[in-house]
Amino acid sequence: MRIGFVQNDPHFGQIQDNLDQVRELVGEQKIDLLVLPELFASGYLFRDCAELRLYAEHTGAGPVTRFLVELAKQTGGYIVGGFAELSGDHIYNAAALVNCRDVLKVYRKIHLFDREKLYFRAGEGPFWVEDLGICRLGLMICYDWYFPEAARTLALRGADLIAHPANLVLPHCPEAMKTRALENRVFTVTANRIGSDQRDFQTLSFIGRSVIYSPNGTLLASSSSDCATLQTVDITLTDARTKRVTGRNDLFADRNPEHYQI
Amino acid sequence: MRIGFVQNDPHFGQIQDNLDQVRELVGEQKIDLLVLPELFASGYLFRDCAELRLYAEHTGAGPVTRFLVELAKQTGGYIVGGFAELSGDHIYNAAALVNCRDVLKVYRKIHLFDREKLYFRAGEGPFWVEDLGICRLGLMICYDWYFPEAARTLALRGADLIAHPANLVLPHCPEAMKTRALENRVFTVTANRIGSDQRDFQTLSFIGRSVIYSPNGTLLASSSSDCATLQTVDITLTDARTKRVTGRNDLFADRNPEHYQI
Repeated sequence: MRIGFVQNDPHFGQIQDNLDQVRELVGEQKIDLLVLPELFASGYLFRDCAELRLYAEHTGAGPVTRFLVELAKQTGGYIVGGFAELSGDHIYNAAALVNCRDVLKVYRKIHLFDREKLYFRAGEGPFWVEDLGICRLGLMICYDWYFPEAARTLALRGADLIAHPANLVLPHCPEAMKTRALENRVFTVTANRIGSDQRDFQTLSFIGRSVIYSPNGTLLASSSSDCATLQTVDITLTDARTKRVTGRNDLFADRNPEHYQI
Repeated sequence: MRIGFVQNDPHFGQIQDNLDQVRELVGEQKIDLLVLPELFASGYLFRDCAELRLYAEHTGAGPVTRFLVELAKQTGGYIVGGFAELSGDHIYNAAALVNCRDVLKVYRKIHLFDREKLYFRAGEGPFWVEDLGICRLGLMICYDWYFPEAARTLALRGADLIAHPANLVLPHCPEAMKTRALENRVFTVTANRIGSDQRDFQTLSFIGRSVIYSPNGTLLASSSSDCATLQTVDITLTDARTKRVTGRNDLFADRNPEHYQI
């Protein structure tokens, strides 16, 4: 199974240009599961609700989710990518899972970071896992990584692989995702962006360093802090189906939930 | 507040020699909280229950816990160290918290690793946190690190600092403890041993690399894989009392337990 990420360099608000950039990075490659960053097409640093609304779309009815379906025709596989989801009066920081025909599922970010709280509504949950046949997939977005319960919940619900669109500004996540992979014995794909959103009210720079880890914590792919790129790797998915770390230890069987505070 | 760890090189079964080595490493230093490795006085790789029983002791009534109290007189602070605790018919892989007068609390390892399952009884919990005035202290032992719920439970119960006696044989923990510190905004002190237990039925080598992290993930102290050593560092404990990561984000207030599976 071939998995990968796009690390892109979006320009704030330039949706068509940003989509074109991703299309060019992907080219003709066939990829079973491709992960794009959080809000990869719009940029990240919105002024307010009114501005965000300009870039939000109903799932499957706007340029970003439509593009994802078109891109899936090109790759021949599944794609996960972040977008601003309009639903009723609310806008969510969301990620869509699509194939070449349609949007299959949407995850709405549960843990909102910093200014996101000003204009996004937090996802109502639950963390879901979708069995795609080729893998059981769970999604989380950016700051969700900080909460061990997010990846844990996905793994306990059967995820083999966690797709993790991100727009990281703090330095810790690329390294910490190794722990998320190890402690859950899952594959993780963190797709981050580079560049910066330079607005008149604030500038934010993004750290790149997208990473893919295996269930035993091996770094399978990583990218720099300043390069727009596509990276792919072939994995043996069944590596995530055993939680065994020694002949006598299974990470899930060894849990003692009666002693855990939630 | 001065905290530290001893990374020792015990010889299996040579309790008096091993205690002497620790005493020499500590010397005349004054340390508010000192952490020693798991089973630091006995060695780790027991043949069976009968052999383990030779080295187990009732809390406060054997050479290891008595030594810890004597050592606390020397350092003038609190000490955490691992020992085999005899209680009724059971033996626990335990860690004692002592001051210069007595053993204050014992933590019994909840997640047992590999052969430990053959001869130790798993701790019945709960994970406790003790308010020492100078800090609120939680304990976990070695393989407990692999379970994010262990450190999380201690942090949610108010721990500022997690003392983590260990006998690590796998390579991941020294790096992963950075994530444990970050995700909970606590100090962590992992005290590991070096050397190996060479028995006729198996040989195990230990990785050293003891580490202290701050609540923002800074590596405050670390040691090599092959050197017996004492290391100390001065910390500002209140750094662990705020869980804030941005002006709008507090790691504990941002949790959404209703979405977490346990």
